[in-house]
Amino acid sequence: MIIAVDAMGGDNAPDAVVDGVKAALAEFPDIRIRLYGDREAIESQIGGHERLSVIHCSEKIDSEDEPVRAVRRKKDASMVRMAQSVRDGESDAGVSAGNTGALMASGLFIVGRMDGVDRPALAPTLPTVDGSGFLMLDMGANADAKPQHLAQYAVMGSVYAEQVRNIRSPRVGLLNIGTEENKGNELTKEAFGLIGQAPVNFIGNVEARDLLNGVADVVVTDGFTGNMVLKTIEGTAQGLMHMMKEAFMSTAKGKIAGLLAKDNLGGFKKKMDYTEYGGAGLFGLKAPLIKAHGSSNANAIKNAIRQARTMAENDVAGRIGETIGRMGEHE
Amino acid sequence: MIIAVDAMGGDNAPDAVVDGVKAALAEFPDIRIRLYGDREAIESQIGGHERLSVIHCSEKIDSEDEPVRAVRRKKDASMVRMAQSVRDGESDAGVSAGNTGALMASGLFIVGRMDGVDRPALAPTLPTVDGSGFLMLDMGANADAKPQHLAQYAVMGSVYAEQVRNIRSPRVGLLNIGTEENKGNELTKEAFGLIGQAPVNFIGNVEARDLLNGVADVVVTDGFTGNMVLKTIEGTAQGLMHMMKEAFMSTAKGKIAGLLAKDNLGGFKKKMDYTEYGGAGLFGLKAPLIKAHGSSNANAIKNAIRQARTMAENDVAGRIGETIGRMGEHE
Repeated sequence: MIIAVDAMGGDNAPDAVVDGVKAALAEFPDIRIRLYGDREAIESQIGGHERLSVIHCSEKIDSEDEPVRAVRRKKDASMVRMAQSVRDGESDAGVSAGNTGALMASGLFIVGRMDGVDRPALAPTLPTVDGSGFLMLDMGANADAKPQHLAQYAVMGSVYAEQVRNIRSPRVGLLNIGTEENKGNELTKEAFGLIGQAPVNFIGNVEARDLLNGVADVVVTDGFTGNMVLKTIEGTAQGLMHMMKEAFMSTAKGKIAGLLAKDNLGGFKKKMDYTEYGGAGLFGLKAPLIKAHGSSNANAIKNAIRQARTMAENDVAGRIGETIGRMGEHE
Repeated sequence: MIIAVDAMGGDNAPDAVVDGVKAALAEFPDIRIRLYGDREAIESQIGGHERLSVIHCSEKIDSEDEPVRAVRRKKDASMVRMAQSVRDGESDAGVSAGNTGALMASGLFIVGRMDGVDRPALAPTLPTVDGSGFLMLDMGANADAKPQHLAQYAVMGSVYAEQVRNIRSPRVGLLNIGTEENKGNELTKEAFGLIGQAPVNFIGNVEARDLLNGVADVVVTDGFTGNMVLKTIEGTAQGLMHMMKEAFMSTAKGKIAGLLAKDNLGGFKKKMDYTEYGGAGLFGLKAPLIKAHGSSNANAIKNAIRQARTMAENDVAGRIGETIGRMGEHE
């Protein structure tokens, strides 16, 4: 199996990416890696490896680049070349920690949609209190969605959770402002019925306040709401940690308590760190792309490569296409 | 000034409500209160007061009641009679800690919309890290919204922030998934232009991750998204507190730290407690209704009465109607 990796994406590129590739080659003897980026920077760090090919690219896409334009114009960008390798079947799956919008554009315009899929979706795994995590999609690949898109997201998420996260009959929930069937806006009210007919284990509406408690294995929502919820979780966690720190530092007793609790808080932070749960899958494409978090360290890159490998090995893209194709026939 | 209060709404009714009324009568010598509910229960607790009238009601609306049906059928419910008193001009404003949906229905069907206002909006004040708080609307009075509704919410929130929260030229932000003007879904993209033309201090798009940092004084969004964000903040805060507690309790050192930090965490909890910031205003009605939090204690009820008093005193409803009327003329 061959995984294409964009060496130039993410805050710590190329060093963290190269180290992650090294670790992945050591851990998974069944993979070969095609690494796209600045040859000199890469080879000064990794030397050679029999299962590694370095492909030199003269350009890279920056986090500030306008996604669609960057993908169209920077023809020798490492991310673009990585996606071309996946499109051409030269690689089985691709990984990048770079510009999220540009990776989605690369998926849509270079790799291409799976037949029958209306819209690809971006799906990260988010932390839960018990550490098991849940998959949420769409997280912003498309701001607006129609009810039938949400039904397709349900299928994509369910296939992934089953094949990659090894969850039998994953519980699929529709994110809504109440649990009753008739709750919500026009979109969710109509989507409720469609997801109920889809070949997934639909458990009905789930509320945002129960997400961290692991109320579902797969949570379906439109890209606007998904992005909003993700950023609210991030902002609330950051705000609380800040206030907590201030509360501790405001008294001498508190400062001592903070020192004593340092190890405990470290473990807690690790549980909340979603880079631990791997990257976000871009579903509904002809072949898998994984978006590793922008702040990925070597370990997060290795996890994203593992994820790409498992998706390719279990032919998640093919199974998604097949299942959605069967839904179409029943209509 | 006369405030009508529903004695039977909320988890701690009627005791917390009656105690809150007592405290409000003591603190604000310029108000009279009309208290609706079970006379026996009320009078056994409060006795008499020269500025208090108790109006006996034989029914009450429960938190499980279907809102619209309950308001239509329970003609002698304390909440319904409270709203009628506001409609009839017998009281200047109303307060209830009961069923949110039923209070919104009472506002819409009994008190009635202000001329020119398309949709009333529910607007709580949410906590920020610095303790100053921000107003967010709509929080679920209407799941779906059109761009012109968001522009009206902007005006309502701005008038309230200026008149009641004493903020000069309140910063109004549009909740969105990015700060750039062209970001968002169809609704927010179109609303951006309309709010820009409204007579408010529009600072552009704001992101959910910056809310707790006080990025704006008034945050405008549709009811579905608002409700989602509120529940995500609640769920994340609860989940984090739970995990934090577990982290502390997992080691002996952590347990000691927890004991030492108890006072600090208490102050922190108080800062995050949004009952401290008063109830949620129901804006766009002919006269103000305040929804106190369901778990309100006497102090929260007193704060909600203060809020109703300030809204009536500054004729917030009238100013909202006037400003929105002027917007209409310019079209």
